[in-house]
Amino acid sequence: MAKIGVVLGSDSDWPVFEPGWKILADFGVETEVLVASAHRTPDAVREFALSAEEKGIRVLIAVAGAAAHLPGVVASFTHLPVIGVPVSGPALKGVDALLSIAQMPAGIPVGTMAIDGGKNAALYAASILAISNESLARRLLDYRNAQAEGVRKRNGALQEKIRQEQTSAR
Amino acid sequence: MAKIGVVLGSDSDWPVFEPGWKILADFGVETEVLVASAHRTPDAVREFALSAEEKGIRVLIAVAGAAAHLPGVVASFTHLPVIGVPVSGPALKGVDALLSIAQMPAGIPVGTMAIDGGKNAALYAASILAISNESLARRLLDYRNAQAEGVRKRNGALQEKIRQEQTSAR
Amino acid sequence: MAKIGVVLGSDSDWPVFEPGWKILADFGVETEVLVASAHRTPDAVREFALSAEEKGIRVLIAVAGAAAHLPGVVASFTHLPVIGVPVSGPALKGVDALLSIAQMPAGIPVGTMAIDGGKNAALYAASILAISNESLARRLLDYRNAQAEGVRKRNGALQEKIRQEQTSAR
Amino acid sequence: MAKIGVVLGSDSDWPVFEPGWKILADFGVETEVLVASAHRTPDAVREFALSAEEKGIRVLIAVAGAAAHLPGVVASFTHLPVIGVPVSGPALKGVDALLSIAQMPAGIPVGTMAIDGGKNAALYAASILAISNESLARRLLDYRNAQAEGVRKRNGALQEKIRQEQTSAR
Amino acid sequence: MAKIGVVLGSDSDWPVFEPGWKILADFGVETEVLVASAHRTPDAVREFALSAEEKGIRVLIAVAGAAAHLPGVVASFTHLPVIGVPVSGPALKGVDALLSIAQMPAGIPVGTMAIDGGKNAALYAASILAISNESLARRLLDYRNAQAEGVRKRNGALQEKIRQEQTSAR
Amino acid sequence: MAKIGVVLGSDSDWPVFEPGWKILADFGVETEVLVASAHRTPDAVREFALSAEEKGIRVLIAVAGAAAHLPGVVASFTHLPVIGVPVSGPALKGVDALLSIAQMPAGIPVGTMAIDGGKNAALYAASILAISNESLARRLLDYRNAQAEGVRKRNGALQEKIRQEQTSAR
Amino acid sequence: MAKIGVVLGSDSDWPVFEPGWKILADFGVETEVLVASAHRTPDAVREFALSAEEKGIRVLIAVAGAAAHLPGVVASFTHLPVIGVPVSGPALKGVDALLSIAQMPAGIPVGTMAIDGGKNAALYAASILAISNESLARRLLDYRNAQAEGVRKRNGALQEKIRQEQTSAR
Amino acid sequence: MAKIGVVLGSDSDWPVFEPGWKILADFGVETEVLVASAHRTPDAVREFALSAEEKGIRVLIAVAGAAAHLPGVVASFTHLPVIGVPVSGPALKGVDALLSIAQMPAGIPVGTMAIDGGKNAALYAASILAISNESLARRLLDYRNAQAEGVRKRNGALQEKIRQEQTSAR
Repeated sequence: MAKIGVVLGSDSDWPVFEPGWKILADFGVETEVLVASAHRTPDAVREFALSAEEKGIRVLIAVAGAAAHLPGVVASFTHLPVIGVPVSGPALKGVDALLSIAQMPAGIPVGTMAIDGGKNAALYAASILAISNESLARRLLDYRNAQAEGVRKRNGALQEKIRQEQTSAR
Repeated sequence: MAKIGVVLGSDSDWPVFEPGWKILADFGVETEVLVASAHRTPDAVREFALSAEEKGIRVLIAVAGAAAHLPGVVASFTHLPVIGVPVSGPALKGVDALLSIAQMPAGIPVGTMAIDGGKNAALYAASILAISNESLARRLLDYRNAQAEGVRKRNGALQEKIRQEQTSAR
Repeated sequence: MAKIGVVLGSDSDWPVFEPGWKILADFGVETEVLVASAHRTPDAVREFALSAEEKGIRVLIAVAGAAAHLPGVVASFTHLPVIGVPVSGPALKGVDALLSIAQMPAGIPVGTMAIDGGKNAALYAASILAISNESLARRLLDYRNAQAEGVRKRNGALQEKIRQEQTSAR
Repeated sequence: MAKIGVVLGSDSDWPVFEPGWKILADFGVETEVLVASAHRTPDAVREFALSAEEKGIRVLIAVAGAAAHLPGVVASFTHLPVIGVPVSGPALKGVDALLSIAQMPAGIPVGTMAIDGGKNAALYAASILAISNESLARRLLDYRNAQAEGVRKRNGALQEKIRQEQTSAR
Repeated sequence: MAKIGVVLGSDSDWPVFEPGWKILADFGVETEVLVASAHRTPDAVREFALSAEEKGIRVLIAVAGAAAHLPGVVASFTHLPVIGVPVSGPALKGVDALLSIAQMPAGIPVGTMAIDGGKNAALYAASILAISNESLARRLLDYRNAQAEGVRKRNGALQEKIRQEQTSAR
Repeated sequence: MAKIGVVLGSDSDWPVFEPGWKILADFGVETEVLVASAHRTPDAVREFALSAEEKGIRVLIAVAGAAAHLPGVVASFTHLPVIGVPVSGPALKGVDALLSIAQMPAGIPVGTMAIDGGKNAALYAASILAISNESLARRLLDYRNAQAEGVRKRNGALQEKIRQEQTSAR
Repeated sequence: MAKIGVVLGSDSDWPVFEPGWKILADFGVETEVLVASAHRTPDAVREFALSAEEKGIRVLIAVAGAAAHLPGVVASFTHLPVIGVPVSGPALKGVDALLSIAQMPAGIPVGTMAIDGGKNAALYAASILAISNESLARRLLDYRNAQAEGVRKRNGALQEKIRQEQTSAR
Repeated sequence: MAKIGVVLGSDSDWPVFEPGWKILADFGVETEVLVASAHRTPDAVREFALSAEEKGIRVLIAVAGAAAHLPGVVASFTHLPVIGVPVSGPALKGVDALLSIAQMPAGIPVGTMAIDGGKNAALYAASILAISNESLARRLLDYRNAQAEGVRKRNGALQEKIRQEQTSAR
């Protein structure tokens, strides 16, 4: 089955992606994760991007903060779809990373997620692979249904809470 | 072959997407384009998203400005990958649209392109379909090579221009 | 009497609206609260908006953060006045939600409150219902008078504090 | 019938509101328009707000740019619902006005429209009056239907245009 | 001697101004402080501004957060110089207040200080009164000299610290 | 009579200040204008600030764009009140200049005007001098009255225009 | 003599750098200019950066807009000082490029210039080479003196203009 | 050997620069550190900048927050390369400092680092001195290699962690 390649600009970005990694593991999608920096280890990034396809990787996720060049650099070396996750930092709260990833010039696209949106990167990557993988598509739909069910449950809990507040206010 | 569904929030968004549409036409990828507003014709958007898969659409592109809810609304009705293109407007220059599209909550991702990045939306959609379509992958690579060749040519032209300025300055 | 319908994008938005809910309860205005997500349970939102009028709801309040599509989506399904409350988040502090709600395109308005302005949403909804409800208008005026009185009291307390600091400084 | 009071911070704001004024005129809603500045003629604004209710005004619209205090100042003198329209300016493009209007403190709400959203202010005011005015509600629904019809027509026109481009491209 | 009038939009703004109040007290400048809200008690603000001159007030300081209309509203009722202090809030960190105060329209100026710049407001007010008060001017110069001396002392302390680090590093 | 010293960071800033200069000339206030750059001619700025008081200057205005250090640099050399005018530029539209001027650190205040607010700088400087100059205070009041009258006239003109539109619409 | 290497992300960036190029030509500093895109021709950028030192290049300038990764990518392949010039674009006016260049992570610095600051990039590069090149240092000082002289001349011209306006106003 | 001069706008900026200071000490580069404020002790800053060259300083680093004029003021008095480090503050998180430093006008450049980028300032200064100091160049390369090695180690550690999570999940 097609794999998903994940590059983190720093090991400190792992908590941003970990929830996504768990979803992909639950979905049975194989991932290959690499910590590599577009600036400190540029050739490791280049190598990973160039060799991705022949390793069976079909979608790439790149997670980075600040001047987040990692997704764009990955995309410059492969025509596989690249998903970028901007990571928030202490000063600019991820605005720098969001613009560094989203504002890619014409010709080399990156699909940008929300700031710290590691979970959505995984779901998006899964949705791409699900195009030609029916069982994965079904798992995605199950996930969405469970998610909607969660909203309904939390609605029920809030209704109960409001009822109690109303009763106790009388 | 898999189709790409495109929703424009307004017909005035067509110039933003038209360059992408031409690329997809060149690539031989079939597109189905709809003008429909998340706010003025919400049921048309819902209908389009719900019926996309059975019409053979495998990737969706949604193009919208201002409080650009269109990509998120499309994504709420389908698990197919949705690509969002924020369109610049007179006041906030697309910052509103960029945030409205990129900052999707966990659970329902949208792959966000640069502001007015209609061309990249097409290339990104193509890269997704190319995963299971080798001839499309080759066309994407050809496009990238031609693009790189264009950079080299423009470099050559600038070198020539600089040489002439240097000569005439002597 | 006319009711106010309230949709929260997530149960975690309840603390933002709770102070407003208490004001409406004090005013004797009936509210119907629903947790429903524009993206995870779009049809629940649609259903709530479409059925609001026949349930006696006359004003709608929608509370949401990040790419806060909820108020706009509600407004797309009803001509009742919709009040939107942007909720602050960890990265962009509600700027994303503010723009996603305020920058609605021409044709489908949403009355936007301040970031985390759940209390004002309640007061604004009350002011709308008060147009045709004199006793509610009087309650609103009482609330305003009490509020002004509170400012005057806090002024008195500060005067006292300053006097003490001046005395002790001598 | 209930009237709508409109205050413009400057006569140069008229083009922003004029499209809204025309809609209200079409709807048969009476408006009373005043040019008055929160800073240059504060007592005119105060007088207008204080006397609005007894003149039959039920909703107020305030349109202003830059440090747009007008809507908040109007709201400080009346419990009628106030709609604020931020006007874009040469430097900050209306961001200053948007924040000056939307970020009202707890206790005195203003329903904020999009930057330069004069049309939506009118529609929002109409939706408030329509709560207790069935014929106005019907006109609002007609307006919405016509608007949706316009989207569908523009969709048709774009389909035609695309077909022609496809034909000529062959 | 000329007095300085100070209006705080809320008693919670006192910590922002207190350091300035202490400086003015040290300088022997009399202040009159009022907690009054441009929105909740507009007539108290108006009254304070209109009566300021005859009470001997020659400079006004207004301190407010969020949609900080207070300085502009004060300035609309008096030709005395008004100094505005934007107060930071939880979401927008004072950007809203800064723009609401600084972006006053032509005709009614407010001298804007930094976000939370209560101390500078006091120094600026003192510098205005010092124009026609030589002993106050001398006190201002003394304050500046002491301030410069403080910088020099802190420089000395850092030099010492660096020397120690260098020694211990050997 | 007390003079006002004006420093422009560039002669291209003159159009921003010229309307203010005309007001001061009308008011009979003497100005001394200097083009001097905080970065290109720092000693000219320093000299101007240091010698301002003995030349009879009592208020300083500094006008500058981009990294607008001029007002702060002037203020670092004098205890006279300094008014800063941020000038808009092609890229950041004056946001850079606004923050560079308004965000002065504690100890050295600058009274910041709106972006391109040259007129208000003149009025503010006049209001400061008017504290000890009754005839100037009267001129300021006359100016304000004329300004308010202008608003009333423009209101009258708009009323007329609306009446005509209403008549022609029948 | 040491050379300066210049990489432009696009030939359309040439007008931003051309004024700097002319200064360097006047200073007699040799430049090597390349049009190469971090995303479209990543290996050309890598090759240029890796071979810069052995070609006698001692300082690198990289000019790019949007998600401006070019300066950071160049810096990732060389320890030579890299100067980055953010180029303004239609939507975000260079804010995206400024943050993409300035917010480099710890370890790989880029010296960032103002938006569209091509001239300053050249002056900065010259100031670096001038450390070990006395005649270049003298040329830099001459440039600065001429620049200061230009400010003084423009001041003289403005004084004359003001005198004429004053005379004609009498 | 060439020295690096460092000016801190406040001793509270030392933690921002200290990591850089340690790197330079490790590299054996002599630094001269001064706490001096562009606004509170302008002549100390001027003196430091004017005398830098004759004291053997070849590169200057200036570290400052808020309206961070320090780097520009230093640059106005010397043609030596100046590196500016914007320091984050409580309200604007360093955006004010970043713009105050980066947006220098044409003619007087400052090489701007990331917000709180004290470490990079040291590395950048070292890279400048390394142009004519081979042993320093080697130390820089060693630093980069160690840095790259650190990334590889952290990658190894993450691989291990993931493997354990996968095992324990079975």
